Amino acid sequence: MRKQFRDLASPEEARETIASLDVTPDSETVPLSAARGRVLAERIDAGMDVPGFDRASMDGYAVRARDTFGADEADPVELELVGEVHAGSEPDVEVTSGTAVEISTGAVMPPGADAVVIVERTDERDGSLLTYTSVAPGDSVMSAGTDIAAGARALGPGTRLTPREIGLLSALGIDDVPVRGRPVVGIVSTGDELVRPGDDLRPEAGEIYDVNSYTIAAGVDEAGGVPKLYPHAGDDYDEMERLLRQAADECDLVLSSGSTSASAVDVIYRVVEERGELLLHGVSVKPGKPMLVGTLGEGGAYIGLPGYPVSALTIFRTFAAPAIRAAAGLPEPRMATVEGSMAVRERYAEGRTRLMPVGLVTGSAPSTGDSVADTRNNPDDTASERLVYPVDKGSGATTSLVEADGVVEIPADVEYLAEGESVTVQLFSPDVRPPELLGVGEDDPALSRLLDRVPSPRYLPFGSREGLRRLRNGIPDVAVVAGEYHGDDEAVELGSWTREWGLVVPADNPDGVTGLESLVDDDLRFVNRDTNSGLRTELGNALAALAEARDVTRHELVEAIEGFENGAKAFESPPRAVRAGNAAVGLGLRETAAALELGFVSLGDQRVRVLANPDRTGKRGVQSLGDALDRIDDVLDGLTGFEKV
Amino acid sequence: MRKQFRDLASPEEARETIASLDVTPDSETVPLSAARGRVLAERIDAGMDVPGFDRASMDGYAVRARDTFGADEADPVELELVGEVHAGSEPDVEVTSGTAVEISTGAVMPPGADAVVIVERTDERDGSLLTYTSVAPGDSVMSAGTDIAAGARALGPGTRLTPREIGLLSALGIDDVPVRGRPVVGIVSTGDELVRPGDDLRPEAGEIYDVNSYTIAAGVDEAGGVPKLYPHAGDDYDEMERLLRQAADECDLVLSSGSTSASAVDVIYRVVEERGELLLHGVSVKPGKPMLVGTLGEGGAYIGLPGYPVSALTIFRTFAAPAIRAAAGLPEPRMATVEGSMAVRERYAEGRTRLMPVGLVTGSAPSTGDSVADTRNNPDDTASERLVYPVDKGSGATTSLVEADGVVEIPADVEYLAEGESVTVQLFSPDVRPPELLGVGEDDPALSRLLDRVPSPRYLPFGSREGLRRLRNGIPDVAVVAGEYHGDDEAVELGSWTREWGLVVPADNPDGVTGLESLVDDDLRFVNRDTNSGLRTELGNALAALAEARDVTRHELVEAIEGFENGAKAFESPPRAVRAGNAAVGLGLRETAAALELGFVSLGDQRVRVLANPDRTGKRGVQSLGDALDRIDDVLDGLTGFEKV
Repeated sequence: MRKQFRDLASPEEARETIASLDVTPDSETVPLSAARGRVLAERIDAGMDVPGFDRASMDGYAVRARDTFGADEADPVELELVGEVHAGSEPDVEVTSGTAVEISTGAVMPPGADAVVIVERTDERDGSLLTYTSVAPGDSVMSAGTDIAAGARALGPGTRLTPREIGLLSALGIDDVPVRGRPVVGIVSTGDELVRPGDDLRPEAGEIYDVNSYTIAAGVDEAGGVPKLYPHAGDDYDEMERLLRQAADECDLVLSSGSTSASAVDVIYRVVEERGELLLHGVSVKPGKPMLVGTLGEGGAYIGLPGYPVSALTIFRTFAAPAIRAAAGLPEPRMATVEGSMAVRERYAEGRTRLMPVGLVTGSAPSTGDSVADTRNNPDDTASERLVYPVDKGSGATTSLVEADGVVEIPADVEYLAEGESVTVQLFSPDVRPPELLGVGEDDPALSRLLDRVPSPRYLPFGSREGLRRLRNGIPDVAVVAGEYHGDDEAVELGSWTREWGLVVPADNPDGVTGLESLVDDDLRFVNRDTNSGLRTELGNALAALAEARDVTRHELVEAIEGFENGAKAFESPPRAVRAGNAAVGLGLRETAAALELGFVSLGDQRVRVLANPDRTGKRGVQSLGDALDRIDDVLDGLTGFEKV
Repeated sequence: MRKQFRDLASPEEARETIASLDVTPDSETVPLSAARGRVLAERIDAGMDVPGFDRASMDGYAVRARDTFGADEADPVELELVGEVHAGSEPDVEVTSGTAVEISTGAVMPPGADAVVIVERTDERDGSLLTYTSVAPGDSVMSAGTDIAAGARALGPGTRLTPREIGLLSALGIDDVPVRGRPVVGIVSTGDELVRPGDDLRPEAGEIYDVNSYTIAAGVDEAGGVPKLYPHAGDDYDEMERLLRQAADECDLVLSSGSTSASAVDVIYRVVEERGELLLHGVSVKPGKPMLVGTLGEGGAYIGLPGYPVSALTIFRTFAAPAIRAAAGLPEPRMATVEGSMAVRERYAEGRTRLMPVGLVTGSAPSTGDSVADTRNNPDDTASERLVYPVDKGSGATTSLVEADGVVEIPADVEYLAEGESVTVQLFSPDVRPPELLGVGEDDPALSRLLDRVPSPRYLPFGSREGLRRLRNGIPDVAVVAGEYHGDDEAVELGSWTREWGLVVPADNPDGVTGLESLVDDDLRFVNRDTNSGLRTELGNALAALAEARDVTRHELVEAIEGFENGAKAFESPPRAVRAGNAAVGLGLRETAAALELGFVSLGDQRVRVLANPDRTGKRGVQSLGDALDRIDDVLDGLTGFEKV
């Protein structure tokens, strides 16, 4: 019943197939003011001399050079002043032997004059000019056409127009510029479960927001194409077929991102086969296997991208973007790559080329933003200072899009990358910079505010336990740990605060929850946090104490709590479950309860520490986090239940 | 009468003064589809769990994990199939002990189920499911919030939005994005002589096209601002004052580019002083001395740029663009710099920091467009392979804008740069690539067509003599030489052709010009080419021969030709002078005469050779020029009087 893919093409075959597609649009004419970044469609020859006249290049006096021969400081030559000429006006006087005309920079040389004596080397004395220097013909004169001459080749076809080329076109008076067209790229989203951002979402019905449409549209724009989004057809396959046909008519290239339903694939097959042919089905790379490539007749083409956002964007960048740039006449960007060493061992053995999303973290060398020594332009600063770690939250995750800096291409025959092994990272774009700060650990509202004061931080809220574990492995710059900490390693404590934690209940506390006892003794549906969370550890300790007081095992108490074992990932999830009526009690913070206007039963205060890798304390991001912690009062201002330590 | 500048500020003072200006606009909200490249104005926290439900991450069957314990290939577990659930639909069935539900990737886990058995490890047999493997709770399930959890910090303020961030915003359903505003930058052009491109120009009245307005506007756009061009006020100073006031009201920053007239400067002074204050007048850099900086009150500022395009753009890039980027919240781009060695000695001693425009030419190493070994990303490929030559056609020249690749900053106290000295070049942008081919020499219509077939060539039409001279100095890849060539050096001849040259006259040849004799014997106004031109040399030789035949000196003949001594720069200029009625005869090509529909009296055919630097023949640009020369027939097709050799 489900379609299986066979005969996967190699990445090279896929590139060649896509390169063979004709998606080049007609060229067009744009006004000069809109020409920046466009690509010249044809050669531009100068239609006129620039400057169009012999032009004074200094303020001074237009003269006949031969009249000044022999002049010097001691023995100036006197000439009769017969007039003046200024920039933008036509000379109304001629320079004859023995005369001079005052002239300003940019003005037309009057007839008869062949040089300018600069004002600094002259004196005016009752109507006549004294020149203290002699000049040669052409001195301080820019003769017609010396900048660019009529008929000369000004700019070649394929030239990308930057402000500098805009300048030359301006000088030539060209305000209609013939440029390569930008390919129109239609984006048809498939998948019954997708909802456009901004519309209402019904998670209970398995709906998710459509990530690929806007992401790919932005990628198309970045690659020099014009994205055209088509309305989402949902599970109406006739409508989807109609939209695909319309897109094929209107666009140079049509993209769709994967669909889990066979019926959608059938529709795509039908439309592609009806207008052109399917050239490729499936490529041997991970992620991205389910890629479709076909023609749509008459300079139209189709590329089907995988459905998962990370896969879709990776495949778009690897295979589709180059075709769009080529059609727009844009050069392939120099791919920015950096060397780094694997922070962990990575196993891989699937017989497919793998494009592994990775994050970068740099060592203590302060990252400078403006020199060739920066991490991007200088592949030779010791790679040992740059760690590379895989970002893999499952291909369904969109956060890996922003948590990764680039990809490492792993050939099909490589089985694993060893820890410390040197790898080459293809950055997502030359603009990508490794984060100034990489943190891992507890999620916390005060921390979110602290991070706002750090330039380009990256924080992975994987919980206190995971934060400590990774800090010991030497990957992050800092770990954020909530609750007990025994300081049994060299980590440097940058700062800390306390937060009040406890049981979040409905606003009116209908079940009359009073504390831990209620949770154990009353029959209440509870939502816990996951085991990596410092909050859950804190709760566990409190239960252990209660068990001891009651002289029972901790296990007995835990058993009595419905939902204790299943934990939610983020600090707001349990309170939100309570607000949604899905639970009677949730583990959380007073601050969260207040923010969501829920009731709260306090169980105590918990310390939150920011611990730094001792080798990274000199790093810019760590420093600015430290500075922010020095002003923790401002940060905590307005947060309920938070205290400076 | 003319304003003199005093107390020049140092470049550092100028930077600080400009950095102190407040030009930051209010932030705004844009639709997600328009958010690419913008900068987040505030932190974005997740307002929901992503995914919003426990989600099957594989096609298969939703089960209770404990029901599968012990299952293996030999001994499958049989479960009752009680229904199915697909992506985008709400489960209408519960999984109870001993039952399973068919589920597709992305679908909501039905109540009761805690794991998915992938389809490949199962069989369906009359209504019941056989699973050949056991699964643990959570297998093939992505639980709610594992991608990003409600309340988690998604993106920080100041984040630049690339397709990847657009993806995360999409996943969160955010379609109104709070972003930093783009500063509105008003551009007021001053200068009586300026005409907007597209309008008619009166060169005889000293008019030139306004280069700076569009160039600076493109630069503003590139720096993340919104350029706003104001109409050109010409020499109406009241109007100019009105426009400056209007711009000050409407813009965050007002730029004007220099004016040669003191009255314009007076107007600027008046407006700035009336609303704010003048902070700086003149900076100690070349080019760019006459720079003005002032406030316009209430978050408004003014920067006056020099008038000459090269100066204006250099000063804009060095001082104004950083302020615009800062206001837009954009990071300073990593400045792309490369090392190179001076191709010539460059003297300089003016006691001002100099920003010297330079061109780059790379050695024979084929320039690859996509690796870290490229000339930009790898400062360590031997600088000796990259030559740096000054581009200075006088600051009035706009062609130096496109003939330069970047600038070399020379400190005030440096008197000269020696030939071969290593220098650091600040590229105009990271996208700048040295030309694939650098040629110098004769201007020629066939050559223009040949260059169209070379990727990013640069050709300096300085004439045959200059071309040969520079080729010997080892700077260009090729020289193009018209006329006699004695092959007295190692240059490699890539190819050649001939062109018919002679005297261009009005269409009906009113003076009955028959040949060289008419030029010498009749009293005709003649327009010659400059002494670097191979055409002029050819004419000189012909006159020498005639002189010999007549047994007179060449000098006597030359003396008899009105206008022989003054030469025009480009091959079309003499014919254009004839067409304009400014001359009776012009030196030129049959092709040019034909193109301009003029008469022509042939004086012979002249060979044009393309000579390559023997060390550069392997270079990509040289190779593709060679390829084009191999197909010279196509190139010459349609050119009158051109022949393959």
